[in-house]
Amino acid sequence: MMVLITYDVNTTTVAGEKRLRKIAKLCRDYGQRVQHSVFECLADPHQIALLKNKLIDVMDKDKDSLRFYYLGSNWKPKIEHIGAKEGYDPEGVIIT
Amino acid sequence: MMVLITYDVNTTTVAGEKRLRKIAKLCRDYGQRVQHSVFECLADPHQIALLKNKLIDVMDKDKDSLRFYYLGSNWKPKIEHIGAKEGYDPEGVIIT
Repeated sequence: MMVLITYDVNTTTVAGEKRLRKIAKLCRDYGQRVQHSVFECLADPHQIALLKNKLIDVMDKDKDSLRFYYLGSNWKPKIEHIGAKEGYDPEGVIIT
Repeated sequence: MMVLITYDVNTTTVAGEKRLRKIAKLCRDYGQRVQHSVFECLADPHQIALLKNKLIDVMDKDKDSLRFYYLGSNWKPKIEHIGAKEGYDPEGVIIT
């Protein structure tokens, strides 16, 4: 299934910058970055649960926010891209 | 229907900063900001088409990107929020 993950991390402190780097790395491990703080993860529910738990461990729940959008298996017609950097196929290799 | 809009605007120039402000204002006019560059718009297809055209007019297609995620009418179970700033009801008033 396709899950979109978006995040806001409070980077006003060094600790916040570290959390941002860790969260971005975790999302990269499981998905593709499509915008600065937006990742698309094509994975099974077990993998998504694993990723979610890892993200929750890293984030500061009082300062950062994560949103998960569950787009299901018929996700292709639900996504439209306009403009720069349309450069990857979530089912294939990175083509940027 | 619910449409999620995410954007990356290249703000390395004054013109880019202007585009960012205009794009954020347009998205605010039609939806709710849920993260820094993430808006959720609960609107009919006509309104979404209007917004899309306005955004395309403002953006620089070579430098900026917009993504639309069409979550349909049964969007509530598709969205999960974790952490800070869960503060609005897209069907109601702003509660932050």
